[in-house]
Amino acid sequence: MRILGVDPGLTRCGLGTIEASPTRQVTLVDMRVARSSPTMAPHKRLLMIADELEEVITTFKPQVIAVERVFAQANVRSVTGTAQVAGIVMLAAARHDLPLGLHTPSEVKAAVTGSGRADKAQVQKMVQRILGMETLPRPADAADSLAIAITQAWRGGAQSLSAQPDRTQHGGADTLPRATGSDLTPAQKLWASAERLSSRHGAVAPGYHKHERNEP
Amino acid sequence: MRILGVDPGLTRCGLGTIEASPTRQVTLVDMRVARSSPTMAPHKRLLMIADELEEVITTFKPQVIAVERVFAQANVRSVTGTAQVAGIVMLAAARHDLPLGLHTPSEVKAAVTGSGRADKAQVQKMVQRILGMETLPRPADAADSLAIAITQAWRGGAQSLSAQPDRTQHGGADTLPRATGSDLTPAQKLWASAERLSSRHGAVAPGYHKHERNEP
Repeated sequence: MRILGVDPGLTRCGLGTIEASPTRQVTLVDMRVARSSPTMAPHKRLLMIADELEEVITTFKPQVIAVERVFAQANVRSVTGTAQVAGIVMLAAARHDLPLGLHTPSEVKAAVTGSGRADKAQVQKMVQRILGMETLPRPADAADSLAIAITQAWRGGAQSLSAQPDRTQHGGADTLPRATGSDLTPAQKLWASAERLSSRHGAVAPGYHKHERNEP
Repeated sequence: MRILGVDPGLTRCGLGTIEASPTRQVTLVDMRVARSSPTMAPHKRLLMIADELEEVITTFKPQVIAVERVFAQANVRSVTGTAQVAGIVMLAAARHDLPLGLHTPSEVKAAVTGSGRADKAQVQKMVQRILGMETLPRPADAADSLAIAITQAWRGGAQSLSAQPDRTQHGGADTLPRATGSDLTPAQKLWASAERLSSRHGAVAPGYHKHERNEP
């Protein structure tokens, strides 16, 4: 399954595409960052990012799009821009009739590092390891978008636009079966040990083991 | 000049179209509310609103789009949805190569009522009076979208997507000349007295008299 992970942002928007096998092995397909300058008009910035996103979708044909769920932070202005970009990514998923997954930053960190409070460097390091990349994925926005795609591959929870009736869409469904038994890939072993670690330390965000809920 | 005002929202998105004459007289063209249900998947909700917006743009052919500038409020979830909708409206303006105006809620209230702290009922009443409508514009979201369009007509500040070079887009420009002299329409007289009132009471938001700045 081809997954596009998006780390939304107005100045830098990470776009990471991976391929996930039925056994949950993940490989890198493409990694890029759409950029727009703060000197540009805001709607023109959104258009630049929307155009680059469109190119990624038509070139790599993802079957699901996963986006970081935006929450309010200290900087209100940056949150607004981030939410606007998240909105255009979600709209693109809907226009292409693709299922959408939403994951909070702490869910993503927990999925790839085992801790919901991991820093950017830890996330970069684990993304490099999980995808078997020769160098660290840079910039951090690109690494984050890949981490979001990996979270989608391992945790699922995408909401389908057309396959499910509206009323049952809240629960979502894992897009890939959970790995069990002894035939684990290295990435799965990393994941399993991260999961053990995180439940032991209680570092995983509340609701992390539950399916995503996407109420307004 | 044909102006589309948008009060962004995921559950109810106000879409108000007006015609503004060179003498700043404003008349109603269309008023509607795009709706989506909280039981739907979020990206499907955005698509519904984007489709209705598209219909309004192609039907009434506005020459400028004005959107309420979103700020953080108590309810983070609702702000995120509002910012997502604002993002898709801004993107639509860019895709149609239309100038965009952004106005804060207090700027809009000040423009139509003379007070940046006016309540919804006051805004509805003034929109009815200014546009010469027989009944109150309902629901409040529709009235707000018309108030945003009126603010754009009277205060201007739209950023053009293509007409201006990037570096000078911050300042914006009035899309209509300021009314001066004695040949004021009733609406302009209302506006002038509201303006006098608001400067006397100091109820106008900071920066209200300056042009909009649209940095991220």
